[in-house]
Amino acid sequence: MAKELASKVNDYSQWYNDLVIKGGLADYSSVRGCMVIKPYGYAIWEKMQAALDKKFKDTGHVNAYFPLFIPKSFLSKEAAHVEGFAKECAVVTHYRLKNDPNGGGVIVDPDAKLEEELIVRPTSETIIWNTYKNWIQSYRDLPLLINQWANVVRWEMRTRLFLRTAEFLWQEGHTAHATAQEAIEETELMLDVYADFAENWMAMPVIKGKKTANERFAGALETYCIEAMMQDGQALQAGTSHFLGQNFAKAFDVQFLNKESKQEYVWATSWGVSTRLIGALIMAHSDEDGLIIPPKLAPLHVVIVPIHKGEEDLNKIFEKVQPVMNELKAKGYTVKFDDDDKRPGFKFAEHELKGVPVRLAMGMRDYENGTIEVARRDTKEKTSVSFEGIADYIENLLADIQQNMFNKAKTFRDSHIVEVNTWEEFLIQIEQPGFISAHWDGTADTEEKIKDLTKATIRCIPLNNQQETGKCVFSGGPSKERVIFARAY
Amino acid sequence: MAKELASKVNDYSQWYNDLVIKGGLADYSSVRGCMVIKPYGYAIWEKMQAALDKKFKDTGHVNAYFPLFIPKSFLSKEAAHVEGFAKECAVVTHYRLKNDPNGGGVIVDPDAKLEEELIVRPTSETIIWNTYKNWIQSYRDLPLLINQWANVVRWEMRTRLFLRTAEFLWQEGHTAHATAQEAIEETELMLDVYADFAENWMAMPVIKGKKTANERFAGALETYCIEAMMQDGQALQAGTSHFLGQNFAKAFDVQFLNKESKQEYVWATSWGVSTRLIGALIMAHSDEDGLIIPPKLAPLHVVIVPIHKGEEDLNKIFEKVQPVMNELKAKGYTVKFDDDDKRPGFKFAEHELKGVPVRLAMGMRDYENGTIEVARRDTKEKTSVSFEGIADYIENLLADIQQNMFNKAKTFRDSHIVEVNTWEEFLIQIEQPGFISAHWDGTADTEEKIKDLTKATIRCIPLNNQQETGKCVFSGGPSKERVIFARAY
Repeated sequence: MAKELASKVNDYSQWYNDLVIKGGLADYSSVRGCMVIKPYGYAIWEKMQAALDKKFKDTGHVNAYFPLFIPKSFLSKEAAHVEGFAKECAVVTHYRLKNDPNGGGVIVDPDAKLEEELIVRPTSETIIWNTYKNWIQSYRDLPLLINQWANVVRWEMRTRLFLRTAEFLWQEGHTAHATAQEAIEETELMLDVYADFAENWMAMPVIKGKKTANERFAGALETYCIEAMMQDGQALQAGTSHFLGQNFAKAFDVQFLNKESKQEYVWATSWGVSTRLIGALIMAHSDEDGLIIPPKLAPLHVVIVPIHKGEEDLNKIFEKVQPVMNELKAKGYTVKFDDDDKRPGFKFAEHELKGVPVRLAMGMRDYENGTIEVARRDTKEKTSVSFEGIADYIENLLADIQQNMFNKAKTFRDSHIVEVNTWEEFLIQIEQPGFISAHWDGTADTEEKIKDLTKATIRCIPLNNQQETGKCVFSGGPSKERVIFARAY
Repeated sequence: MAKELASKVNDYSQWYNDLVIKGGLADYSSVRGCMVIKPYGYAIWEKMQAALDKKFKDTGHVNAYFPLFIPKSFLSKEAAHVEGFAKECAVVTHYRLKNDPNGGGVIVDPDAKLEEELIVRPTSETIIWNTYKNWIQSYRDLPLLINQWANVVRWEMRTRLFLRTAEFLWQEGHTAHATAQEAIEETELMLDVYADFAENWMAMPVIKGKKTANERFAGALETYCIEAMMQDGQALQAGTSHFLGQNFAKAFDVQFLNKESKQEYVWATSWGVSTRLIGALIMAHSDEDGLIIPPKLAPLHVVIVPIHKGEEDLNKIFEKVQPVMNELKAKGYTVKFDDDDKRPGFKFAEHELKGVPVRLAMGMRDYENGTIEVARRDTKEKTSVSFEGIADYIENLLADIQQNMFNKAKTFRDSHIVEVNTWEEFLIQIEQPGFISAHWDGTADTEEKIKDLTKATIRCIPLNNQQETGKCVFSGGPSKERVIFARAY
C-alpha cells in the first residue's frame, strides 16, 4: 500500500499501531510504557476535553486539582482499593540526587529517603476523600460535585499506545452525597453523559450496563460502564461510573450532620474516561487508508487542494476559495489550503491517512466551470459540486458524515451481537468477531471458568435489559436475563 | 475584622495565607509541600489557561504531551541542567507494593526495583529533546513550536501556597529552530506574550528584562523574565523565557540537514508560567477586605443580592433582574442571583472576600424607583443607578474596573522604583518597600555580596534600558546601565 499501513484484515493489531504512529497521533517514549501524545493526537484530546468539560459543568460540576502523590498509608485504608492497585504502583522513595563521591555520576542521595513512601496516583479516591473530610461538615456542604483533569500512573506490564499505557491522561469525577439514592442517581447521570458523548461526538454506539462483582472498580459497590465494539468485534470499555457507597467515607471518616442533626457517613461516586478513548475512536472507524475522524472531534475539518500548473493558477484558485474558507471559519470549522510543494495524489493520501472529514480539490476546469470536487473521507465518495453555496453544502455534509459514521458503526455492532444458547454454540461463536448475548447463572465461578476457557469476559449486564428466564450457557443453572460476553481490549 | 483576615499592613504574609484559604482558592494537603487547588482557585487557573492557550495558538504553537517521568541518565546529559535540579527531585525507585509477609501491612516490594530510577519531571527539556531527536531531520521540520500543559515537581524545602509548592501546574513551551536569530526572536516573542497577559488580563504591570548569568535557568544562554511588584514592594518573577542555544541539541544530539545540505545542531527555546501567577494576582491587587480579581479572570463577574422581607418581594426582584442576568450572560459574563438564606451584610462581606468585581443590590425602594445599587469591588464605591440600560452600564463598568486596577497597580509600582547612587542610600532604601534602580559593575561577585548583605537580588536588566554610564553602587566599578534590585518572592 502507498502509505505502508499494515493490512486491517490480516493484521489488525499492527494496522492499529501504524495508524497511531503514521497518523501522527502518538509516539513511543524512552520511558517504559509511557507514550508521547503528538500534536495531532493531542488536538483530538483537546476536543474531547472541551465537549466533556462542558457536559460536566452543565450538570453542575466544578473542576479542582488534588496532589499527584498519595501517601502509602492512604492507599491502604480501603482494603479492596489497595488490593486492586498495589501491584502496579510507581513509588517515590527519595527526594534528591547527588554526585556520586566515588565518581559514578549522578546517583540517588541515600540521605534523602522519605519517611513515608509516596505513590504516584493511580486514581485519586484516597487523597480526595482525605481532603473531603475537611470540607464536609453538614448536609449544607452536600452534594459536592468535583471533577479533576489529571495524569495518572498504573504500572501495566503489557502496554499499547492509548489503550493501555503506564501514564495516561484522564478526568476523574468524585462526588459526595447525603443519601445513597442521590449518589446512585449521580452515578447513572454521569454514565448517560459518557454514553451521549460516545454516541454523539465519537459516533460510537455503546451498550450501557453494570459490571459483574468480579469486574467492579476496587472499592465500588456497583460499577456502571459503557461498552463499545471495535471493528474486529472485540469489546472496549469506554468509560466507567462507580457507586462507592460509604466505603471511602468510612475509610477516611467523612461524616456529616444530617437535617435531623445526626452524624452520618457520606455517600460517594467516582467516574472517569481517559485518553484510551482516542484508541477507541481509531478502532471504531478507521479503514485501510487511514484514520476516519468524526467531524465533531476532527482537529481539521476541511482541506482544500489546488490542482494547478503554475503560480498564476494557484493564485486564481486561492482567491476564489478564500471567501469560502472565511465563511467556514466563521461557522466554527477549521480549514486548510494545502499549497504545499507536493503532488496532489500525495496530498490526497496524506489527508486520507489523517482522517480529515472533507477534502476539496479545484483545478482550472473547475475554476472555469464554477465547480469544485468534494471528497468525503467516510465513504470515499467524490462529487463535482457547484461552487455557489459550497460553504452551506459542506456544513450539511459534515453533519451527514457525523451521522453516517454513527449509523455505520451501529449497523456493524448490531449485526455482530449474537444470541447464544448452548455451550457448543458459544465455543464456535466466540471465535467469530462480535459480542455474545447469553444467559449466565450469576456466579463468579462460572464467569471465571468461561474466561479461562475462552478469554471471553462478561462485558456488562445491560441496563434496561429484557427480563427473560433461561439457563446458563455454561452451567445450565437458572438465569433471569442475558449478559454480554466478549473478548476485550 | 469581620472576616478574620490578618492585617495586610501588620502581617502581610499571614494576610496572604488567609486570603488563599478563606477566599476558597486552595488548601493545604496531607502531602508535604503539595496543595489542593479548590474549585474557585482552579476556575481562575482555567481562565488563565484559556487566555494564554489562545495566545500560544495565535502565535503558531500547538499542544502536545510528554511523559511525567524522566530517566535519571537524561537529566545528567546537560551539565548545568542537572546541577540546577538534582537537589530537588522526586525519585521513583520501585513499581509495586505488596503485603508485608511479616504482617507489617503494605510495603514497597523490594523485588520491584527499577533498573534505572525515574525522576518526576521538574521541567521537561531533557525528555522533550530526546524525543525531538526523532522528529527533526531537515530544515523542513523546523521550526517546531510545541507547548505542554502539565504538572511538575520540585522538592522545595520551604513552600507557600501557590508561590512555591512541591507540585505545581504550568505550561512549558519548547521550540526548535534552524538559526540562533530565529530562536532569540521566539524567546522575545513569548516574553511579549507573557507581558501582554500580565498587564492586560492580570492588570499587573511588569518590567521586561534579562536575568544576570547567576539567575539564569539551568542550561540557558539567556533568560528573559517579567518582574512584577507586589503591594508590599517585593518583586515576583511572573514568567520566564529562555534562549537555550544549542545546549540541549548537543546533549541529545539533535541535528538537522540545513538548506545547504549540511548537518547542524538545532537552536532551542523554552518558556513557562505557572499557578504561581495566582499568588501574584492575589498579592498585586487584594485589600484588607479580601480578594480583588480583575474582571477578565474573575470566575464570577456580577452578583445580585436581593434585599427583601418575604418570599413575595424576593420573587418580584428576581423577575425584575432576570432579563438583565440573561443579557449579561449573553455578553459572556457570569452572574449569580444570591438568594441564599443569609443576611445581606453577611453576603456582601462574602462576595468582597471572594473579589467579585461587581455587586448589585436591589431592595423594594429600588424596585419601585427603577434603580439598583451598584458596588464596585476595586474602589468599593457604591452608586444608585437607573435600572434602565443596566447591562450596558455593567459592561462598561467591568472594562473600567479592569483598566483602573491596572492603573492603580502601575501608579503604585512606578512610585516605588527609586534610583539609588550610593551604597549608603542603598542600605536605607532596601528597607523600604519597592525596587531600586542602580548601577552594577556586571560581576557575579558584586551581585553575590549585595545579596548576602541585603537579601536583595538583581531582578533583571530591563530591556530597552536607557544606556547611561555610571559607577557600581557597591564596588564603584564602571557600569553602562542601571539594573533592578529588590527582595523577592
